[in-house]
Amino acid sequence: MSEITNTPEPPYFAVIFSSCRTEVDDGYDEMAARMVELASQQPGFLGIESAREGVGITVSYWESLQAISNWKKNAEHREAQRLGHRQWYSSFRVRIARVEREYGMG
Amino acid sequence: MSEITNTPEPPYFAVIFSSCRTEVDDGYDEMAARMVELASQQPGFLGIESAREGVGITVSYWESLQAISNWKKNAEHREAQRLGHRQWYSSFRVRIARVEREYGMG
Repeated sequence: MSEITNTPEPPYFAVIFSSCRTEVDDGYDEMAARMVELASQQPGFLGIESAREGVGITVSYWESLQAISNWKKNAEHREAQRLGHRQWYSSFRVRIARVEREYGMG
Repeated sequence: MSEITNTPEPPYFAVIFSSCRTEVDDGYDEMAARMVELASQQPGFLGIESAREGVGITVSYWESLQAISNWKKNAEHREAQRLGHRQWYSSFRVRIARVEREYGMG
């Protein structure tokens, strides 16, 4: 599913979401897929990368802090956050960062 | 192996390393483990989170841009970078970001 995002010239913003899951499934995969779909439709969305191997790391990229703030307040996203806190995640960390520099290959 | 890093109050810095692997193994796992060990010994290192699921995402956290620059220039790390470009990665992206805000649970 996940590929490396072709982001524009910095600066832009990243939300680094690191999480550990509980053993509760109960719709988790559907929610996760729906959140990727929904995020992709938001203004200012640039892309998303995600992997889980013990810890889960999802990095979404955004044009502005305002775009991130709007996404955080999205009603369907808020409901997913609520269920995440309550049942899907044993711990998580959200970090909002300004990407200053980027380089790579391929 | 990987857990969520207990980072200090922002601001601090993150290196988001996203990669796709070739099918060449040839010491990759050993190199990856050694780079985590070596990074952990560098001045200004705060922690590292890593997962691969198709795409690989490794986020390392640092006190300063200078600490990141020093780590990039580390001789053993440079050799790993060289082999990474040549044989282990089909594509990668390195993003240097300033973490402005953090919150979480657990």
